[in-house]
Amino acid sequence: MKHLLSVDDLSRADVDDVLDLAASFLAVTKRDIPKVPALRGKTIVSLFFEDSTRTRLSFETAAKRMSADVMTFSVATSSVKKGEGLRDTVGTISAMGIDAVVVRHSSAGAPQRITEWIDASIINAGDGRHEHPTQALLDAFTITQHRGRDLSGLKVGIIGDVRNSRVAHSDAKLLTALGAHVTLIAPPTLLPESVESWGATASLDLDSVLPELDVVMTLRVQHERDAQSRFPSLREFTQRYGLTIERAARMRPDALVMHPGPMNRGVEIAGAVADGASSVIDEQVTNGVAVRMAVLWKILGSGGDVV
Amino acid sequence: MKHLLSVDDLSRADVDDVLDLAASFLAVTKRDIPKVPALRGKTIVSLFFEDSTRTRLSFETAAKRMSADVMTFSVATSSVKKGEGLRDTVGTISAMGIDAVVVRHSSAGAPQRITEWIDASIINAGDGRHEHPTQALLDAFTITQHRGRDLSGLKVGIIGDVRNSRVAHSDAKLLTALGAHVTLIAPPTLLPESVESWGATASLDLDSVLPELDVVMTLRVQHERDAQSRFPSLREFTQRYGLTIERAARMRPDALVMHPGPMNRGVEIAGAVADGASSVIDEQVTNGVAVRMAVLWKILGSGGDVV
Amino acid sequence: MKHLLSVDDLSRADVDDVLDLAASFLAVTKRDIPKVPALRGKTIVSLFFEDSTRTRLSFETAAKRMSADVMTFSVATSSVKKGEGLRDTVGTISAMGIDAVVVRHSSAGAPQRITEWIDASIINAGDGRHEHPTQALLDAFTITQHRGRDLSGLKVGIIGDVRNSRVAHSDAKLLTALGAHVTLIAPPTLLPESVESWGATASLDLDSVLPELDVVMTLRVQHERDAQSRFPSLREFTQRYGLTIERAARMRPDALVMHPGPMNRGVEIAGAVADGASSVIDEQVTNGVAVRMAVLWKILGSGGDVV
Repeated sequence: MKHLLSVDDLSRADVDDVLDLAASFLAVTKRDIPKVPALRGKTIVSLFFEDSTRTRLSFETAAKRMSADVMTFSVATSSVKKGEGLRDTVGTISAMGIDAVVVRHSSAGAPQRITEWIDASIINAGDGRHEHPTQALLDAFTITQHRGRDLSGLKVGIIGDVRNSRVAHSDAKLLTALGAHVTLIAPPTLLPESVESWGATASLDLDSVLPELDVVMTLRVQHERDAQSRFPSLREFTQRYGLTIERAARMRPDALVMHPGPMNRGVEIAGAVADGASSVIDEQVTNGVAVRMAVLWKILGSGGDVV
Repeated sequence: MKHLLSVDDLSRADVDDVLDLAASFLAVTKRDIPKVPALRGKTIVSLFFEDSTRTRLSFETAAKRMSADVMTFSVATSSVKKGEGLRDTVGTISAMGIDAVVVRHSSAGAPQRITEWIDASIINAGDGRHEHPTQALLDAFTITQHRGRDLSGLKVGIIGDVRNSRVAHSDAKLLTALGAHVTLIAPPTLLPESVESWGATASLDLDSVLPELDVVMTLRVQHERDAQSRFPSLREFTQRYGLTIERAARMRPDALVMHPGPMNRGVEIAGAVADGASSVIDEQVTNGVAVRMAVLWKILGSGGDVV
Repeated sequence: MKHLLSVDDLSRADVDDVLDLAASFLAVTKRDIPKVPALRGKTIVSLFFEDSTRTRLSFETAAKRMSADVMTFSVATSSVKKGEGLRDTVGTISAMGIDAVVVRHSSAGAPQRITEWIDASIINAGDGRHEHPTQALLDAFTITQHRGRDLSGLKVGIIGDVRNSRVAHSDAKLLTALGAHVTLIAPPTLLPESVESWGATASLDLDSVLPELDVVMTLRVQHERDAQSRFPSLREFTQRYGLTIERAARMRPDALVMHPGPMNRGVEIAGAVADGASSVIDEQVTNGVAVRMAVLWKILGSGGDVV
């Protein structure tokens, strides 16, 4: 595996491999010294054109736990402000002998484009509304930790601002590929144009679908994109699509509540539900580091035994 | 010791332990390779909601000298801008398996609050006007390096913008606990409301107190808080409370001049006094790294022999 | 060698030493694990008062490949905003026991000034229009990799916004010292006032000089300085001084095309020329890491065998 741009790049064997490795690395992260020399001497740059401390910190933690060197290239202090094009910025990084670049960009396809200009491996950490493959892998890992590797017939609901969500896009495709049945639940204005190409079905009615769901994944309402112009008010959104305490009481007792973060507590999810017994939101974050260690190892590792 | 939030958390034995360890680590920092494997595999995040390169650099230098991994979470690039609450930001850091978080925040009590939400150790690097315990420890260490461990009867003056100063607050409490007699010297508008609870006495008249002082600690006039509205002009402040060359000439010959930095040269302290023979201001900075190594070791170390 | 402030600091033996070391380190950077323990325990701070991700990343990559600890002190988050003077900022860094400071500053002479206040080694990473000595060394290294160590009689043209360019200044002096004949080619308003003190000759006519040049070094038009007020339009600049495809066709077949980056493609250099067979622009970036490893080793190393 040279790059990770989309969940479409992953064969079933790749996914199984990442999930197996992630389980091993999760054990590493719980050791007294949670560090392995696996990627010693490798240099990884995080190249974030959109702010995301959460994702950047997760990748950097993963890289440091594998003894890689990590450098942050944030746009605020970059030559991008001097008018240098993306291509030359990337060319410079490439020529410095960097091994991998973790890219977040507001334009769909930017990480793909970058692969044409660079020898280093590119890992997509979110590109526009397109994809966020490591989030999908960590969500799949979190679900399999609770439900086993075979997701056949598992009912997953992805709720809310689906249209703007690269997380929803990557998750729907990956979980469907693993056998789950994914329902996208949103007002018509927040559903994507081509639900079928995501391998999912759509519903406008959370209350009718909710009692059947094994996994209840709420999404962040993205104020920074155009979500708010697409429904009358946050209050109305919460009334119809928020995972309130009342709604959570009608979930299956063994349902898992997930959220990719950062949360708008009281909007798409009630604080008490986010912190409740069904929530695996903290596990998602913990697993995120292990999954990113697995991806880095699969892309940059020598193939030997590491943990 | 799990957290360090306030000097009130420290028993006399704790303080002695930190001062002993700091002396050992100070010796380490003077070695040719000033680095020990003491905290290898530990991950420390610096979470600064107020800018402070000085303090952040000191903590990060301390952490790196102990072979810990360090990551910076600065507010400018964080999800905080996306409206995520402090609680979820902290929850995310916690779930990533971070071992300690060094927190600076403009609100008194924020680090305490954070301990309720996180498994990691919290070290207060300054919260509003409340406390800055590692500064107090490094000041105590600097004084004991010159005057010995028993501070009984030592006369310490803390001068200037006392009301706004968490350094003054922490220093007054800690140095008093170690036996020193602390006098807070300021115009009435810059004295705290409850001098007694600090264990100190107050004076409005620097010139009458100065000749008795063993330690002359000047404080930064904090333009960014409300100091300037509390006295007529900087010029008048300097005339009455500035450590000018003339005043410095009336100090005891063995008095120590201290300042927590960053200094306003020519305002609360004359440049020539800051750089003069009585000044231990540079030692404070050097000792700061050793004291923070000691605190990190006490909180995160395995308890074994390290240096 | 204690500091590197100007190419004037370098004896011919120093330059030869850096070039030899750079060749060794270049080999290191191509190893499977491109990392040596040469500077383990050394702490290097990058202190950038002007943004430059490119140069900062190159130095930090170099430092990490030598196992040094690196910390970034960017002005945006520094006490400089609190009104602390440069002197005290530097004093603080000094007192923390930092071994070297890599400085970029908009004022010529700032790095020199800093050496008066600090024990650490200072490396000039660009000061105003004055000097950028590591860029000159990496350019010299790149040329010698292609033309051998003896540059006697080699014809080097430095083209464009020469007046504003610290790169041109350092390169002209260093390459001349190595025996090359340097011609500065620019409109009169963009030539420096004292061409002779640079050891170079001047020309206003690129087209007449171009066919003779062994090295064609184009410079960035610096929008952020006053370049644009000094010629009628970018379009006219490109017509007379741009390295267009047509002009490149009239170069010697073995001429080397260089640019210190970041490029304005289509202004001072055509994209196709920057990416063409004569271009060694990517090599400059790659060599930059090796040369900076050599400089760090020469300044901070123990003198032993490292690679």
